[in-house]
Amino acid sequence: MKLETLSENRSHGGVQGVYSHHSEVIGTEMTFSVYLPPHSEGETLPVLWYLSGLTCTHANVTEKGEFRAACAEHGIAFIAPDTSPRGEDVPDAEEEYDFGKGAGFYVDATEEPWRKHYRMRSYIERELPELVAANFPLEMSRQSITGHSMGGHGALSIGLRNPDHFRSISAFSPIVAPSQVPWGEKALGRYLGDDRSSWREYDAVALIEDGTRHDHILVDQGTADDFLEDQLKTSLLSLACAKAGMEPTIRMQEGYDHSYYFISTFMAEHVAWHAERLKA
Amino acid sequence: MKLETLSENRSHGGVQGVYSHHSEVIGTEMTFSVYLPPHSEGETLPVLWYLSGLTCTHANVTEKGEFRAACAEHGIAFIAPDTSPRGEDVPDAEEEYDFGKGAGFYVDATEEPWRKHYRMRSYIERELPELVAANFPLEMSRQSITGHSMGGHGALSIGLRNPDHFRSISAFSPIVAPSQVPWGEKALGRYLGDDRSSWREYDAVALIEDGTRHDHILVDQGTADDFLEDQLKTSLLSLACAKAGMEPTIRMQEGYDHSYYFISTFMAEHVAWHAERLKA
Repeated sequence: MKLETLSENRSHGGVQGVYSHHSEVIGTEMTFSVYLPPHSEGETLPVLWYLSGLTCTHANVTEKGEFRAACAEHGIAFIAPDTSPRGEDVPDAEEEYDFGKGAGFYVDATEEPWRKHYRMRSYIERELPELVAANFPLEMSRQSITGHSMGGHGALSIGLRNPDHFRSISAFSPIVAPSQVPWGEKALGRYLGDDRSSWREYDAVALIEDGTRHDHILVDQGTADDFLEDQLKTSLLSLACAKAGMEPTIRMQEGYDHSYYFISTFMAEHVAWHAERLKA
Repeated sequence: MKLETLSENRSHGGVQGVYSHHSEVIGTEMTFSVYLPPHSEGETLPVLWYLSGLTCTHANVTEKGEFRAACAEHGIAFIAPDTSPRGEDVPDAEEEYDFGKGAGFYVDATEEPWRKHYRMRSYIERELPELVAANFPLEMSRQSITGHSMGGHGALSIGLRNPDHFRSISAFSPIVAPSQVPWGEKALGRYLGDDRSSWREYDAVALIEDGTRHDHILVDQGTADDFLEDQLKTSLLSLACAKAGMEPTIRMQEGYDHSYYFISTFMAEHVAWHAERLKA
């Protein structure tokens, strides 16, 4: 599993790196970023994954996320993958920001022409963890996951499906029930086909309805987020959790929108919250 | 003095805004950003100016600078202007990243064809302060200034020329002696002409040699900065200050480069350092 270093910059006492590799699972070159906080020789670091939203790459959060000071303080490695396969050979929906490249929705597609490359679920759950475990000083028994919007959906669904792998799950303005909103109906319908039963493992609310559980969930959602009403529908998560007897922390943040100005405001709190659980 | 609001986003309890206006001094439309931390109705806020480096606009620091948490904590407004005139009518040196648009060097040009629009000195020292004072809740008797690279040169030279207006000056990897390095010789030569005596008021080291003084100067410089040896030459500032009996704080930061990964690492310390002086 060969890794190419695209850049490494000293930051907040540690190193912010950007790397690429050929993904066997996705079938293309993939880029991701890793922040390693200051640490001793031989020390291994707990891991916080961050899954990005529609149209993003690793770069958005890496540049604008304001996570490094908190990760340095708490000794947490921060990994930000891309959001879809990339490259000229990958089928795309060029006119659509919410489907195709930049919009992998963290699924393993089953439909043509998407199924060959659009396999972000297996990439995030399996291939990339193996790759980073082999190349960085990480303590893979201590992982947590967060994300924004489509990546909040990714964090919730991957975390709920793998409660033994992720000690805590958080999300910024997540799509909590993709099966019930336009972004998700479009993406899951085209990647997975018309049989909605196959969508349920990619839908946090449906996963909870179907019996998955996690004791450590934190969600921040801005009240001035233009997508709240039609696409994010935070209340569906609250309702599903209440019915299931789960007690997530869901915070409606007054006046905040969907941007990185919102994410960066609460990032340090999320890192600290995960750190407490990663080090428990 | 009319202001157009391009965007306003809630962040870290305050508002990050981006605004544009027609500049009389520059003769073009100009864009800048203002972060207002949380504050009470009727309260006025001390101001920290941030001048950006070559190729930058207001956007680089606004997105990557990691200043908002610290500004919110200390109650400081943060203003980031553009680095040159903009627009199709403005003469440029399109092939050159270090001259023309994005490279105003904070001078009032005297040479053709630059003198009409390249008047960043008057814009930063006079027009923009009047504009923001009229439009935001700022306490203009409490101002400090910082900047990066070319903008570090701007912060040092503007601060030194106006010690009564700026309580403290800081800089990240500044060009300390533009008259003595390739970037500066090119820019000052073309904007100001061959008579090097006219360059001295735009050169921090020359200003200090010529008798300007400031008691509160902080400089951070990365040791792994590719521009340190040929363009930045921090040691020339140390030397000039020593000769002049000034005692600036100049910190060589081991392993840091010229990027925003460096700036963002030390930004919170700079904000806190200025805040102490702004509130004294």
